[in-house]
Amino acid sequence: MARINENYQKLQAGYLFPEIGRRTRAFAEAKPDAQLIRLGIGDVTLPLVPAVVEAMRRAAEEQGSADGVHGYADEAYPFLSDAIREHDFRARGVEVAADEIFVSDGSKQDSGNIQEIFGADVSFAVTDPVYPVYVDTNVMAGRTGPADEGGRYGGITYLPATEENGFAPSPPGERVDLVYLCSPNNPTGAVAPRANLEAWVAWARANDAVLLFDAAYDAFIQDPALPRSIYEIEGARECAIEMRSFSKRAGFTGVRCAYTVVPKELTGSTAGGERVALNGLWARRQATKFNGVPYVVQRAAEAVFSEEGRKQTGEQVAYYMANARAVREGLGAAGFTLFGGEHSPYIWMKTPDGLGSWDCFDRLLEQTHVVTTPGAGFGAAGEGYVRISSFNSRENVDEAIARILEAFGG
Amino acid sequence: MARINENYQKLQAGYLFPEIGRRTRAFAEAKPDAQLIRLGIGDVTLPLVPAVVEAMRRAAEEQGSADGVHGYADEAYPFLSDAIREHDFRARGVEVAADEIFVSDGSKQDSGNIQEIFGADVSFAVTDPVYPVYVDTNVMAGRTGPADEGGRYGGITYLPATEENGFAPSPPGERVDLVYLCSPNNPTGAVAPRANLEAWVAWARANDAVLLFDAAYDAFIQDPALPRSIYEIEGARECAIEMRSFSKRAGFTGVRCAYTVVPKELTGSTAGGERVALNGLWARRQATKFNGVPYVVQRAAEAVFSEEGRKQTGEQVAYYMANARAVREGLGAAGFTLFGGEHSPYIWMKTPDGLGSWDCFDRLLEQTHVVTTPGAGFGAAGEGYVRISSFNSRENVDEAIARILEAFGG
Repeated sequence: MARINENYQKLQAGYLFPEIGRRTRAFAEAKPDAQLIRLGIGDVTLPLVPAVVEAMRRAAEEQGSADGVHGYADEAYPFLSDAIREHDFRARGVEVAADEIFVSDGSKQDSGNIQEIFGADVSFAVTDPVYPVYVDTNVMAGRTGPADEGGRYGGITYLPATEENGFAPSPPGERVDLVYLCSPNNPTGAVAPRANLEAWVAWARANDAVLLFDAAYDAFIQDPALPRSIYEIEGARECAIEMRSFSKRAGFTGVRCAYTVVPKELTGSTAGGERVALNGLWARRQATKFNGVPYVVQRAAEAVFSEEGRKQTGEQVAYYMANARAVREGLGAAGFTLFGGEHSPYIWMKTPDGLGSWDCFDRLLEQTHVVTTPGAGFGAAGEGYVRISSFNSRENVDEAIARILEAFGG
Repeated sequence: MARINENYQKLQAGYLFPEIGRRTRAFAEAKPDAQLIRLGIGDVTLPLVPAVVEAMRRAAEEQGSADGVHGYADEAYPFLSDAIREHDFRARGVEVAADEIFVSDGSKQDSGNIQEIFGADVSFAVTDPVYPVYVDTNVMAGRTGPADEGGRYGGITYLPATEENGFAPSPPGERVDLVYLCSPNNPTGAVAPRANLEAWVAWARANDAVLLFDAAYDAFIQDPALPRSIYEIEGARECAIEMRSFSKRAGFTGVRCAYTVVPKELTGSTAGGERVALNGLWARRQATKFNGVPYVVQRAAEAVFSEEGRKQTGEQVAYYMANARAVREGLGAAGFTLFGGEHSPYIWMKTPDGLGSWDCFDRLLEQTHVVTTPGAGFGAAGEGYVRISSFNSRENVDEAIARILEAFGG
């Protein structure tokens, strides 16, 4: 009998979004006439912009021509890594080398896989609530004990993100090896101010720790003074890995492209105290377990950075942010307590009447036919909240607001 | 100091193909006028067929329309899983359920990731020579000791594939939990006859072991009596996972699509003896660490199964197989000892003059400007062989044969 990886059996229930999908399908089957409005999973609803469609069409045709064959691409094509360097970093005063950029098929993959290059017994911290992938991939790798009744796994340092700390926890008093940070945050929609990121970088350097910084939602930051990249903070190259995505900023959830930056200064250590560059370890991990991003997708990502691409995707971000504003203003005026939604497509809503968050999810689904995401699905400190996504049409968002106000009495 | 995964330091040199790339680039820089012919890495050279290009073009345009948005696709679209079930399985008398098929971005990924669902201390066997991903991903996961001087890692059961056993090793006398098999084989080009696969299935069932069957090259099988799927063997659903790819059969190395079949009957066990379905474990692994294959790529894969797609990709396979025949006949007539190339795009050539395989690689590169793959890169038993790929134009293949005959005296 081949022994299974028993760490999987520590995992709580199903992965969050399939579970929401199951409940939503069950409801839709029971009430086939209900007009569902999905503000749950953070999936985009606007079509791909014309600049991206045109780039994909051209790339497909190129691959059909004798001199346009593009096979394995273990490393990103320079046309894409150059565009990333120019527009995502140099425009913000940051220099990143081409071989520090690892293009992939998603930040979910990168943030789930990055733990592989670290030792089996490294300690780590997550904010709570948290994107479940950070936690679950470490549970599967055996770095935790079983979960307690509140859903917290033994061995993880949880840093509660609360109203009191503006949903941006400060570094812990104790030392840990790795810290997963996400700003703008999924699920709370909070953005880490510069001073908070400076405190994290200073703490990581003082503690020889590594920050795993997920900036998948950076395009939604409205205030140009807020950092978009951790590398805008002095010293971050010595202590931080950054993950960025095209999913939300360019509607690529069904196209699949992201990238991870591993600066060459960044090292971990062996048991013998030798310092080893994490860039080389990640390069080896990707060379062994990954085979690159489709040519047509890399061309699509390049087109996001063209003049038209930036304008067109910028308009989509603005559209979603107008939705977020409508939710904040509509529900806020009616007395709901809301956070986020200013530099993020997500609104973090306190459940009314002290409802548990799955109860609130179910009640919203049954009474308003609006799908949200229960905060407790993101961790114990998410209890008492639901996440509302602004990825939908304005018409649906307005209709959802009206239904919620009617059902919950405003 | 965050401790690194020190298992990475057990890995031998670089991953094989980047190493070949480095040597080839160094040669090309030293001799910029040399006309290199690449018969090394198994990358396709023909363009995508028209049916696939048209499907990708249409899918890109669809994604640009308001009602053609396709976002996250954690599970394969039914249009693709249905086509797989019909053409890859039902046409061969095999029934596979839709939720037993996991579509992914590559068999390299799947064959590298599959070990994650098994316990840290499972035992496993590989044939030798072997596709390095099977071994390296287990080294990285800590399932082996360090490598010895011959490049063999402690703790792995190596099954030599030799001229004597027709490069199709029989099951070992000892029990192991997992066995990686690949047919048609990379790198030897050998195909496992039905009796060999029957012996493996019988052995796996008797030993409660799991076969990890990589059929990425099944489209190159010329004899319809040879099994293309392990599930053509009675009882395989209880003991085998199968991996299939579009890379070679449809020129998808730069498009990225593959799939893995995990039958629901297949189980592993916990320490307490409980049986757990591997299908559910792999579903959980993929839901947590993967986000699906691009819509445009799934449409491209679907098009491979259309009437035109099958005809057009069949012609490409025939083109490469004619190249393989030319190599076998051209070099064979001159006295070289060759294997494979009958049901596979790869020819496994004994090095002339008793050369070591890296020496032969270097000599071929320097004297004929032909890039091959040294057999030793695939394991100790690959020493004394080089792999010749037929993925190139007929003109280049003929030219390579002529140069080799001239340089090595025929």
